[in-house]
Amino acid sequence: MLSDIEISTNAKLDKIINVAKRLNIDENDIELYGNFKAKITPKLQKSNSKLILVTATNPTPFGEGKTTTSIGLADALAMLDKSVCLALREPSLGPVFGIKGGAAGGGYSQIAPMQDLNLHFTGDFHAITSANNLISAIIDNSLFNGNPLDMSEILWRRCLDMNDRALRHITIGQGGKFDGVERKDGFDITAASEIMAVLCLASDLGDLKSRISNIIVALNSKKEPIYVRDLGCEDAVTILLKDAIKPNLFQTLQNTPCLIHGGPFANIAHGCNSIIATKTALNLADFVVTEAGFGSELGAQKFIDIKCKNADLKPDACVLVTTIRSIKYNGGVSKEQINEPNLEALSEGIKNLGGHIKNLSQTLNLNVVVALNKFSFDTPNEINFVREFCQNLGVKMAVCENFIKGGAGAIELANYVLDAINSPKDIKFSYEKSDDIRTKITKIATKIYGASEVIFEQDALNSLENIKKLGFEHFDVCVAKTQYSFSDDAKLLGRPTGFKFSVKDLEIRAGAGFIVAICGKIMLMPGLPAVPNALKMHIDTATGAISGLD
Amino acid sequence: MLSDIEISTNAKLDKIINVAKRLNIDENDIELYGNFKAKITPKLQKSNSKLILVTATNPTPFGEGKTTTSIGLADALAMLDKSVCLALREPSLGPVFGIKGGAAGGGYSQIAPMQDLNLHFTGDFHAITSANNLISAIIDNSLFNGNPLDMSEILWRRCLDMNDRALRHITIGQGGKFDGVERKDGFDITAASEIMAVLCLASDLGDLKSRISNIIVALNSKKEPIYVRDLGCEDAVTILLKDAIKPNLFQTLQNTPCLIHGGPFANIAHGCNSIIATKTALNLADFVVTEAGFGSELGAQKFIDIKCKNADLKPDACVLVTTIRSIKYNGGVSKEQINEPNLEALSEGIKNLGGHIKNLSQTLNLNVVVALNKFSFDTPNEINFVREFCQNLGVKMAVCENFIKGGAGAIELANYVLDAINSPKDIKFSYEKSDDIRTKITKIATKIYGASEVIFEQDALNSLENIKKLGFEHFDVCVAKTQYSFSDDAKLLGRPTGFKFSVKDLEIRAGAGFIVAICGKIMLMPGLPAVPNALKMHIDTATGAISGLD
Repeated sequence: MLSDIEISTNAKLDKIINVAKRLNIDENDIELYGNFKAKITPKLQKSNSKLILVTATNPTPFGEGKTTTSIGLADALAMLDKSVCLALREPSLGPVFGIKGGAAGGGYSQIAPMQDLNLHFTGDFHAITSANNLISAIIDNSLFNGNPLDMSEILWRRCLDMNDRALRHITIGQGGKFDGVERKDGFDITAASEIMAVLCLASDLGDLKSRISNIIVALNSKKEPIYVRDLGCEDAVTILLKDAIKPNLFQTLQNTPCLIHGGPFANIAHGCNSIIATKTALNLADFVVTEAGFGSELGAQKFIDIKCKNADLKPDACVLVTTIRSIKYNGGVSKEQINEPNLEALSEGIKNLGGHIKNLSQTLNLNVVVALNKFSFDTPNEINFVREFCQNLGVKMAVCENFIKGGAGAIELANYVLDAINSPKDIKFSYEKSDDIRTKITKIATKIYGASEVIFEQDALNSLENIKKLGFEHFDVCVAKTQYSFSDDAKLLGRPTGFKFSVKDLEIRAGAGFIVAICGKIMLMPGLPAVPNALKMHIDTATGAISGLD
Repeated sequence: MLSDIEISTNAKLDKIINVAKRLNIDENDIELYGNFKAKITPKLQKSNSKLILVTATNPTPFGEGKTTTSIGLADALAMLDKSVCLALREPSLGPVFGIKGGAAGGGYSQIAPMQDLNLHFTGDFHAITSANNLISAIIDNSLFNGNPLDMSEILWRRCLDMNDRALRHITIGQGGKFDGVERKDGFDITAASEIMAVLCLASDLGDLKSRISNIIVALNSKKEPIYVRDLGCEDAVTILLKDAIKPNLFQTLQNTPCLIHGGPFANIAHGCNSIIATKTALNLADFVVTEAGFGSELGAQKFIDIKCKNADLKPDACVLVTTIRSIKYNGGVSKEQINEPNLEALSEGIKNLGGHIKNLSQTLNLNVVVALNKFSFDTPNEINFVREFCQNLGVKMAVCENFIKGGAGAIELANYVLDAINSPKDIKFSYEKSDDIRTKITKIATKIYGASEVIFEQDALNSLENIKKLGFEHFDVCVAKTQYSFSDDAKLLGRPTGFKFSVKDLEIRAGAGFIVAICGKIMLMPGLPAVPNALKMHIDTATGAISGLD
């Protein structure tokens, strides 16, 4: 089989202006960025189109193919003559040069051209980097000019869209007296910036500015928050994002339209594309396929409780992606033996799938369809086992071969999804807006994760006090924990229950409007591996052809 | 009079696709970035079109209006039915939030829309930032993985397109043992990155990759250079610049086409737009107006000795911009009294203008026309004095009122320029390629600056030894000195001669192919003022209208 970038390069893409025409986008509402990407004017009216959420079982080292399935499903719906548009996250530039290369689906279910998507794209991440770092420059300039705001503890960090571990912990302002005030600082990767979360949660430009104003950047000597609005740079920061707020139109290898917009982390943020892109997609097509980061206990929960609640959205169907490999891995099989048939491990590991199905279909009350992303070494026995398991839980399972067949390999999934949409259900939230923060966290941990008890460590208790004092109890909760387990222990695979769940600390994201519950060590600036992907890339300077990007 | 941004907003711009059509650019050679900016395919053939260089007398606190004059001249040539295209530098994002706001000419001689030009534009600077910082991440990753390249002294610094003094001197890698290796580092502003210089000097994509490969990033324990090619990331870095290497099509308020591409510093780099843009402009139009940074003793000298020599270009005419104010300032008038008539100071300060005229017309053998950028408080007496002074030196002077009248205010200048082009001259270089570095610097300092003696301090002497040992004597010289004087002392206004000129040290820019002669304190990362421009900006979130950007 051809490599992803070979498939992408061979694809017959439509000019994006033609993709826009098929969506009936007025030519005044599109700004081309080259021939294959465009910014479009947001359309934010309430729409009755159908929203399909794609989520997954817990991530494993092999990858489950969530984006690949989303793309295959959209292409399949298009092949069934449905009006459809994808809404996906933008990939980060940093990891492209690290371990994994680019991110754009895979095989014959890709969005393209991948070299545009993975390299700067329309500049949104760079705009967010500039916006984030303008705030930092204004903070340090204020310190340099006598600290009139009495900032005694700076919370705001710089950012860069690069995998660069050496920037995690730094000291700045170390020149002479004209070179700033010396203090500790650090860089996070751009996807982890609160600016990214805010851009993805904003309902429009006005809401974006208001959220930026509300970001807390420092504490004064009385431990009271200093906001961006106190710095006075909320307009300048918003101005830097005037184009980044517009969703980007892109396409799949089968020319299915796709809005690609925003890419927040799924641990310290909510992990899905912008509300503006999802709403706009719903205005452009009858069916919208979107996805949420990591496994469903993180991604789908946040999608429902943060994104849907904020934006008054509800998914009409929910696709849960899994693989035989990842089920076996959850059943304790080692990486080396993962491709060998093993029904015993499968029947153990499938509890993980069962946990996700129950959460989605019962706790959150969604119409669930399981998508089994099939690999060549999966046996009919194994597949049947999973199918029957799903049937016993009242859920249909489709075998997906879109990685090798494109949309044609996801027709079964598309039909099951269309069936599911015909039986509307009302979503349930994990918690009520009126619950206090402690209750919200407790409900998520017990109802979704399966914890028997939630332990708030001393820092978390202090933060709860502070949140109450500041009047932020109405905020949403965004849990930052390991993605590899339902629990806060990455090694507890399968479907752990009855465990104690520990909340180490809480951080206020007043611009995003949520409280991050820190429940484990969270990496906000990745490093490069010993031999980074950057060293394997090649460009033919005569033709411009690029290899090694996938 | 309206503000620059009001004039810009009221202008009736043509869609950039129509500007491209008028230049006969094939639709396959244009990639739109919104409606008013586009990337075009470079056209690099040798062309017989006419090149007009715009330079200026030494900068003063008031600004001489070099870019404004360039734009006015191009608009005037277009009004005279000439086929014309501008080739200018891209502004840096950092200073927009600092003292001066945006940069796009002024009054009725602007390129537009300024909010696009001054905010991210087509992303070239961000691409350069990423390319620069990928090299840094690879360096620190190599140190983290045992330093197999034996880098004992890192020369390469990080960069950011932000005015941020606190990043000038920093310490990185300060977390635990998984967070990189602790060392001193710092950020320069992106315009000061060698990647910027290299992009602007590259003849094509292949040459760009080759120049990137040759950049020196560190020294080993034997003091031998480590190159980007030793890191193995020259392809990845080039890939990040695959779009940035293409020139950007833009327009003036009068719809005259403009290629805006690259923006290197004029002290530690050569300070003019890319060779690719200038060559492409020459292929698209009969007349190309371009400019060089700072005063002519820095900008025009580097334009001739670095850019023209590298690219086999020669200017057919040279416009020297000055103002009555700046002449008086050079005659010792204080800022407070600068707008009062003062013929005595004028006759003293005009020696500065005379020095530039002589350098350009005799030493570099160019066809010079003086452009007097007229202000409302200039008196006829003063103007006549300058005109006669120019006549006595055999040079014509045009009064330019394009700031308030647009191209119509620069018709006299355009006609003088067309006259000058009709008397072709061969340019002379300041030095021969075959001169050694010491001789090259000495020739520039004595022939152009007017020094009587050049003193190489001990660090410079050591560097000369090293340059000889490494075989870089054939490189060009790029002097980094104050822009406010012909000399290396910012306070020596007018036309100083007979001074001693000191070279503190030399730095090798092996990718750019020049040796930077450090002749003074050079600021590579600006700071923000006490009340930065960022705090005065406003965006109307209902309409998107922006104010405070100019």
